[in-house]
Amino acid sequence: MIFNYHVPTKILFGPGKLKELAKETLPGKKALIVISAGGSMVRNGYLNRVVEILHSKSIEHVIFDKILPNPIKSHVMEGAVLAQKEDCDFVIGLGGGSSIDSAKSIAVMAKNPGDYWDYISGGTGKGMPVPNPALPIVAITTTAGTGTEADPWTVITKEETNEKIGFGNTYTFPVLSVVDPELMLTVPKHLTAYQGFDALFHAAEGYIANIATPISDAYALKSIELIAKYLPTCVKDGNHIEARTQVALANTLSGFVEATSSCTSEHSMEHALSAYYPDLPHGAGLIMLSEAYYTFFSSKVPKRFEAMAKAMGVDVDLLPQEERPMSFVKALVKLQKDCDVFNLKMSQYGIKKEEIPSLAESARQTMGGLFELDPYTLSLEETIEIMVNSYE
Amino acid sequence: MIFNYHVPTKILFGPGKLKELAKETLPGKKALIVISAGGSMVRNGYLNRVVEILHSKSIEHVIFDKILPNPIKSHVMEGAVLAQKEDCDFVIGLGGGSSIDSAKSIAVMAKNPGDYWDYISGGTGKGMPVPNPALPIVAITTTAGTGTEADPWTVITKEETNEKIGFGNTYTFPVLSVVDPELMLTVPKHLTAYQGFDALFHAAEGYIANIATPISDAYALKSIELIAKYLPTCVKDGNHIEARTQVALANTLSGFVEATSSCTSEHSMEHALSAYYPDLPHGAGLIMLSEAYYTFFSSKVPKRFEAMAKAMGVDVDLLPQEERPMSFVKALVKLQKDCDVFNLKMSQYGIKKEEIPSLAESARQTMGGLFELDPYTLSLEETIEIMVNSYE
Ligand SMILES: [Fe+2]
Ligand SMILES: [Fe+2]
Repeated sequence: MIFNYHVPTKILFGPGKLKELAKETLPGKKALIVISAGGSMVRNGYLNRVVEILHSKSIEHVIFDKILPNPIKSHVMEGAVLAQKEDCDFVIGLGGGSSIDSAKSIAVMAKNPGDYWDYISGGTGKGMPVPNPALPIVAITTTAGTGTEADPWTVITKEETNEKIGFGNTYTFPVLSVVDPELMLTVPKHLTAYQGFDALFHAAEGYIANIATPISDAYALKSIELIAKYLPTCVKDGNHIEARTQVALANTLSGFVEATSSCTSEHSMEHALSAYYPDLPHGAGLIMLSEAYYTFFSSKVPKRFEAMAKAMGVDVDLLPQEERPMSFVKALVKLQKDCDVFNLKMSQYGIKKEEIPSLAESARQTMGGLFELDPYTLSLEETIEIMVNSYE
Repeated sequence: MIFNYHVPTKILFGPGKLKELAKETLPGKKALIVISAGGSMVRNGYLNRVVEILHSKSIEHVIFDKILPNPIKSHVMEGAVLAQKEDCDFVIGLGGGSSIDSAKSIAVMAKNPGDYWDYISGGTGKGMPVPNPALPIVAITTTAGTGTEADPWTVITKEETNEKIGFGNTYTFPVLSVVDPELMLTVPKHLTAYQGFDALFHAAEGYIANIATPISDAYALKSIELIAKYLPTCVKDGNHIEARTQVALANTLSGFVEATSSCTSEHSMEHALSAYYPDLPHGAGLIMLSEAYYTFFSSKVPKRFEAMAKAMGVDVDLLPQEERPMSFVKALVKLQKDCDVFNLKMSQYGIKKEEIPSLAESARQTMGGLFELDPYTLSLEETIEIMVNSYE
């Protein structure tokens, strides 16, 4: 039991919390606000609310509104140039994971020379050390999925090479995050489900990862419990503020898991899929992989699977010992059915079965590091096997 | 479910971690090292190890070695003057809670004008806002009791008035803490028990406090579980590194509880006792109060007591509903017996029964704030009742 623990982000959590941002000391006098190209931050009035808060604190702002659902490197570089040109002191990511992740990467490049991919490890990344701290980052999340408001990670795709790779250091923890479930009421049904499962897998992967600690375990099991209990309600009734709040908490806890343990190869495999098929939502890709992935690992760390089943509400004590680990997978499938996402198929997004071996190789090449954190080291053949079993 | 969450301290946890301090970036070029007057940091070689690490990093140091088991304000002021005179950039607290708490308070006063009590709320404190940030604080803990390495709190006694009051702000979180259970092997049997119970009560009070959150709850229940499971082994076999490690983790988790929830009036009552009777160890005072305190509150928040009993290993499902809350108190008494601390008496430390009403008033006057965080608001009569029931 030897580990380092560091989660420095201050989090304002709960319905109505956005307005308390006005009471906080913000890290500068001029902000770059990073939002998606989709326009929902404007339509829902969230951008306006943030701008008014900044105005009340005499903080200037510039808006960068180009972020795509699968955010790309060229927008990171463009946002960083804008932040430099406008002399911004800090970056606000407002929206879902794509906007907040972009804000993080922009904050890094606003203060560092060269190209973003110079600092990326894996694939064609040069893995160079980052010379300078990032601009301070403020995250205002409007979804419950990536946990990025509570961890240092940002995932960006290099368009030219279809590489989707994570990055993070001490400075990419937001200094301040607002998690206000009232901002999540407008997330549509299917995205609510995809994002909720993304959070669930951050917790589950972090729980079976070989670097898990008793602290990350406590976060993970609580997160799994809350998602199993409340996600179906969020999917069925998007306005259910209590269920939205519980899932938002689960998501923040899964961010803590990512900050203190790690994702495993399930995420590497999904990144390969959605890097080549950017229309595939990250959470949907994970759902497609999950049954085969967790079935494979259930026999490798059976005690861990038993604890996750318990967290999902399975009364494992009533089951014969040999059925307990797989009862997690059964509960997972049931939860997917309850959330109307069990029948997702890779073929619906244009992925071809014969591409799987090269997608598996891509997963291992671009995000091979996560394979080393699995509780059992997969061979290329086993990686392909899991992905083939996921294909329908 | 509305709360703010902020625990910015970086923690190096585990047996052998002290040597990794050499790899960390420390917050300056000259440190004030704060240690106890007892000499154990020198005798055990811990001071030397820290000095060597600083030396290897070309960091200068000054030593302040006057701290008493119940640390006092005059030493805070004296240490702050030394830090100023020597132009120290940061403060290292090395030792138990008294040295680390003193380091925190010295770090505040090294950067702020006036008297420490100007900034204290409660009693004769003036409750003034603190104008400046503190010097950065590094905590190296050699005991598992106060959780101070993972929270912002420091408890100092004003000798002239027998007031023992807590203080903390954003800047009194250590920037870096080392929790190395190898440094705890030398703690004697009775102190191991007192400190372990102190940690247990931080968790239990934080769990019943009316500002508890789902996150502080997760920390608290895990902390209670680990202490119940491993403290008796630590008491019986001080060299048992696995048990020491588990209790050290429980203590760090109980620090997180204090950082995210709060202590309740049990601590106010104890501070009154040990402020007037400085020979009474803090943990021993809490143990004396605990049976009566938790018996009183068991009927106020029965569900919470049931969960705490479960965390202590009680199979509550086998008990009739009405016995479940008090099963926590029974488990607590059993744990005290298993740790050889059940028969502590206030009279052994010179406390007289007829003083109890004035000690109860002192508790409410100096640390009245914690009474407002109890799950039920105690009257003065009820406070006296609990303290009288604790007296033997
Ligand atoms: Fe993810
Ligand atoms: Fe305490």
